[in-house]
Amino acid sequence: MTMSKGFRYGLAGLAAAVALSAGPAFAQDTEAAAEAASTVASPDVQYIFNTLLFLIGGFLVMWMAAGFAMLEAGLVRSKNVSMQSLKNIALYSIAGIMYWLVGYNLMYTGVDGGYMGSFGTYAFDPVGGDALDVGYSTASDWFFQMVFVATAASIVSGTVAERMKLWPFLIFVVVLTGFIYPIAGSWQWGGGWLSEMGFSDFAGSTLVHSVGGWAALAGALLVGARAGKYEGGKINPMVGSSIPLATLGTFILWLGWFGFNGASQLAMGTIADVTDVSRIFANTNLAAAAGVVATTILLQVLYKKVDVTMVLNGALAGLVSITAEPLAPAVWQALLIGAVGGAIVVFTVPLLDKLKIDDVVGAIPVHLFAGIWGTLIVPFSNADTSYSTQLVGIVAYGVFTLVVSFVVWFILKAIMGIRVSAEDEMIGLDKAETGVEAYPEFSRG
Amino acid sequence: MTMSKGFRYGLAGLAAAVALSAGPAFAQDTEAAAEAASTVASPDVQYIFNTLLFLIGGFLVMWMAAGFAMLEAGLVRSKNVSMQSLKNIALYSIAGIMYWLVGYNLMYTGVDGGYMGSFGTYAFDPVGGDALDVGYSTASDWFFQMVFVATAASIVSGTVAERMKLWPFLIFVVVLTGFIYPIAGSWQWGGGWLSEMGFSDFAGSTLVHSVGGWAALAGALLVGARAGKYEGGKINPMVGSSIPLATLGTFILWLGWFGFNGASQLAMGTIADVTDVSRIFANTNLAAAAGVVATTILLQVLYKKVDVTMVLNGALAGLVSITAEPLAPAVWQALLIGAVGGAIVVFTVPLLDKLKIDDVVGAIPVHLFAGIWGTLIVPFSNADTSYSTQLVGIVAYGVFTLVVSFVVWFILKAIMGIRVSAEDEMIGLDKAETGVEAYPEFSRG
Amino acid sequence: MTMSKGFRYGLAGLAAAVALSAGPAFAQDTEAAAEAASTVASPDVQYIFNTLLFLIGGFLVMWMAAGFAMLEAGLVRSKNVSMQSLKNIALYSIAGIMYWLVGYNLMYTGVDGGYMGSFGTYAFDPVGGDALDVGYSTASDWFFQMVFVATAASIVSGTVAERMKLWPFLIFVVVLTGFIYPIAGSWQWGGGWLSEMGFSDFAGSTLVHSVGGWAALAGALLVGARAGKYEGGKINPMVGSSIPLATLGTFILWLGWFGFNGASQLAMGTIADVTDVSRIFANTNLAAAAGVVATTILLQVLYKKVDVTMVLNGALAGLVSITAEPLAPAVWQALLIGAVGGAIVVFTVPLLDKLKIDDVVGAIPVHLFAGIWGTLIVPFSNADTSYSTQLVGIVAYGVFTLVVSFVVWFILKAIMGIRVSAEDEMIGLDKAETGVEAYPEFSRG
Repeated sequence: MTMSKGFRYGLAGLAAAVALSAGPAFAQDTEAAAEAASTVASPDVQYIFNTLLFLIGGFLVMWMAAGFAMLEAGLVRSKNVSMQSLKNIALYSIAGIMYWLVGYNLMYTGVDGGYMGSFGTYAFDPVGGDALDVGYSTASDWFFQMVFVATAASIVSGTVAERMKLWPFLIFVVVLTGFIYPIAGSWQWGGGWLSEMGFSDFAGSTLVHSVGGWAALAGALLVGARAGKYEGGKINPMVGSSIPLATLGTFILWLGWFGFNGASQLAMGTIADVTDVSRIFANTNLAAAAGVVATTILLQVLYKKVDVTMVLNGALAGLVSITAEPLAPAVWQALLIGAVGGAIVVFTVPLLDKLKIDDVVGAIPVHLFAGIWGTLIVPFSNADTSYSTQLVGIVAYGVFTLVVSFVVWFILKAIMGIRVSAEDEMIGLDKAETGVEAYPEFSRG
Repeated sequence: MTMSKGFRYGLAGLAAAVALSAGPAFAQDTEAAAEAASTVASPDVQYIFNTLLFLIGGFLVMWMAAGFAMLEAGLVRSKNVSMQSLKNIALYSIAGIMYWLVGYNLMYTGVDGGYMGSFGTYAFDPVGGDALDVGYSTASDWFFQMVFVATAASIVSGTVAERMKLWPFLIFVVVLTGFIYPIAGSWQWGGGWLSEMGFSDFAGSTLVHSVGGWAALAGALLVGARAGKYEGGKINPMVGSSIPLATLGTFILWLGWFGFNGASQLAMGTIADVTDVSRIFANTNLAAAAGVVATTILLQVLYKKVDVTMVLNGALAGLVSITAEPLAPAVWQALLIGAVGGAIVVFTVPLLDKLKIDDVVGAIPVHLFAGIWGTLIVPFSNADTSYSTQLVGIVAYGVFTLVVSFVVWFILKAIMGIRVSAEDEMIGLDKAETGVEAYPEFSRG
Repeated sequence: MTMSKGFRYGLAGLAAAVALSAGPAFAQDTEAAAEAASTVASPDVQYIFNTLLFLIGGFLVMWMAAGFAMLEAGLVRSKNVSMQSLKNIALYSIAGIMYWLVGYNLMYTGVDGGYMGSFGTYAFDPVGGDALDVGYSTASDWFFQMVFVATAASIVSGTVAERMKLWPFLIFVVVLTGFIYPIAGSWQWGGGWLSEMGFSDFAGSTLVHSVGGWAALAGALLVGARAGKYEGGKINPMVGSSIPLATLGTFILWLGWFGFNGASQLAMGTIADVTDVSRIFANTNLAAAAGVVATTILLQVLYKKVDVTMVLNGALAGLVSITAEPLAPAVWQALLIGAVGGAIVVFTVPLLDKLKIDDVVGAIPVHLFAGIWGTLIVPFSNADTSYSTQLVGIVAYGVFTLVVSFVVWFILKAIMGIRVSAEDEMIGLDKAETGVEAYPEFSRG
């Protein structure tokens, strides 16, 4: 039917409007359903909806890999843009292979309250598989979980950009995506000890973002700051080569986050589940919006200029903050959680510089600090959780990831070196390691 | 099953093929269904489908915010690209917050044939909510409607680019997204007076695009042309800094438009509804295609060169034109509607320049003029509408939005000024207001 | 419900978890269903799911048009970027119109084991159409098939970039999308002679990618190499203007491929179908990942530097390779198929240069060579196929497309010329034919 009278009605008239627009069949069915008390979808329809949620959520989160690539390509100097592009597509690829080879089972199979699952490759459903028992296609679940581990790895690449060699970075990604992330993840999402203790992290403020952030921090400490960054007792700005690409990256990440948080509901085969997914979309969007607004106002007040790269990171910090609990908060709570996330960026980016920790894209404030904040604040809106247990989880993930990452980076440094030569750093990683300049016709020198 | 014999069949064989590929169960069910005369999905399955349509449509339209950001970043000069990026992410954020704070209820609650709804924040469904009565999750509807208001605001930023100060622009966005757009929207989609009169605007040629366009026009008139644009009695071209980013932005908008128009069907829980959504996808795509082809041919004939920025705007004008009625037209009608939209761009972009109205990205031809065209032509394919009522709606929206926007811009100008200083304009808004150059390593001067 | 105990369970506990999370109603339904042996969705729900699959798959593949645009804009020199943008948006538009005007019926209507279908425009479902007989909305199917033909056309534009005139290119696209592709497609997906013979090409390694590749090869042979490319007996590198845009394009294509391969299952209204779609997502992703990893390692070993543009093409070659059979392979097979695809790129890009065939973006290795490989290897995982029949199909498509394309290009060359003048080539197609420089503020001369 064409809707010649516009497509919206006042809320007051909505129930009537729906009955009307859906036609008599709907009304009739509603009645019939009320009589039969059977408004729940059949198991196979639920299975299809749940699987579809994983597939849609999965491709949205996969798209975040492009978001990180663009964000980082925009925030590094032009002489390192090809390398940053290469690292990002390579890490996404490695994540997928490792998560099939060992990660998925290590995270989800036979954890049983413990500290890790079992080893071995993961087998998808057979062709034409029609087992109803788990309520969704396991391949769709694998796909959805796989893009999460890629996200964690993406976080690392930004922090250590512009001086980390290609191959040690890729080997670290192998270990991170095949072992560190899955083992850590098993503690909570695999049904391990933290899950039994009552820790809560809905979509991964800690399990994904802080884990990536801790691994990045360890790398930053061992690889050291970029040449000249903290020379002469000053903090020398090394500005990004393309703000629109960084902006594009941020928008991509924001879009992907609807999959990240929304599909972490893990089901949409019932009214309650799909309603919760909707609520998560709204809260996720508003927390990011609050991150943007808070950052913009703070920057104006503090510096009289609104540094757009800070605002972009403010959006991302809002998103990371709401990720531990995007469902329970009322809107005002979601806004508050996101706004504080944005403020964290404004205050901690300079702090890292003071500590001479050189985080090229601001990934540690955004993913680690805002991730801690988001995880800690869960009990603010979710009464089933406690601040103390949240703290236990945060500390456990921090200690484990930081220590193991440090050891891995340390071994890589000892064996093959993790930093390019001073000369290569000066001419840029693009020429030195990829042989391809990102903008051969534009760049100065 | 693997499909060893290819995956397509002649149309003649389709019915048989479907029965075959879906297996005996389908055929059996079809039979059973025919017997029971009950092929309509149960209310809860309809609820899930409807909600899913809002969520998918919503994230596609959200993505249009990135499209506008890229389009505008590509069409302004490099010294203003950071500012344009900042304005776009900030306006999207503000739109979300304002539409929760006041806009949604002002547009949809208690309008009842009148001129506006009620004030107050909007409450989403509760966690685990399972009320069937409105046929979809209200949070999903809020999300979908919210990204529409952001679209209207995005239109404004392009027109007034390169000389409008950040803060008055953001304050205007607050008013536009919290009040102007929702009040205007209530007249039609909220069930207000225009809806009762029989006005028709399926997905917003007028309610979204023209409203944005009128607000942009008011801003352009008050802020004035860019320095040097019309100096010396000539029209001095000020060309965009990145055609590929503008192209990317256009493709993003085109993609997002499937959500914009398709999900404006507002339901896909029945065969008829999802079939209509499909028809809308096809018509929307073809109208845009016709806009491209018409523009390309016209430019070749008139100028012997095909200005790609005009073609991009031709695609967008095709999209805007079909938005008032993407369902009813036959394909040839959709093509015609889109082609005329494209032609409007070719002929009115120079016209605005003659009038010395400086519209940096061509948003007024694309969104306002093509929006008027699309709304006016609805009765061509939709017999339930009349040209006179369409005209009443167009004029009502024009007068209201232009006058109110003019007043708001005027007040902002009086209180705080809306235009940057001549010096700031010369060095660019990036350095002046954001402190961040978009391309620090590339730009001349 | 908020999930305070984390959102994941060990696989062992999954069945229980599902029953739990879905609530008693689910368990009850499962029981009831088991009793009634009726877990299959009703025909109308299947119709909605199938249509939704086409719509989602369709918008993802539509997005690939942007991917090709960005990939090619990034890989040509800055003086030809506007033209490449224009060609890509124009070819996508033409493809849509031609596929409505003649292509769809030529491919799918009345082929009946033969060599082509019938002529005539395609009629979509009527407004509010509710015929169940084909199991999905025909407009959604048209939309999905239409974006495929656009993909084939996109392949051509990259190969002949930087020296092909605009209009002959567009006229070739008219012929390719209206006639060559649909006729060739009818042989298999339309139920023609190859389909009857048992040829298999699930989502188009041959029907889409090789067809595009053969058409590109014919064009490259007739238009000749770019001026200076093979001068002085050397292969002179002409490097791309923006690696991040090329990277973005690759990520877009990767994302779009989930629609390309996943929705080629053509149905998701049953558990078996949506499970197969999931399996296809996973295999598609892993083949691409293997392409990246194989390319990266090979480049390091062979050249000591990892050329990122080769890695991007490695990802695409992995995707093309798995496209002929993304469902049947076990994961290790998908990885192997993709890895070989990547290797093909590394070895055949230099080969084309030795043959002085100037393929600007590497489309022939990626789409034609990897497409042949993917089609040939189908019997490796799909026992219902044979190597000999696959070879027959590959040869048939090759001969037909190459010969017809050659003839069309030849006629265009004779009538209007297909190559720009030497002077236009030197100043760039942007200035010469579009009048718009892509980066007016950055480019050298």
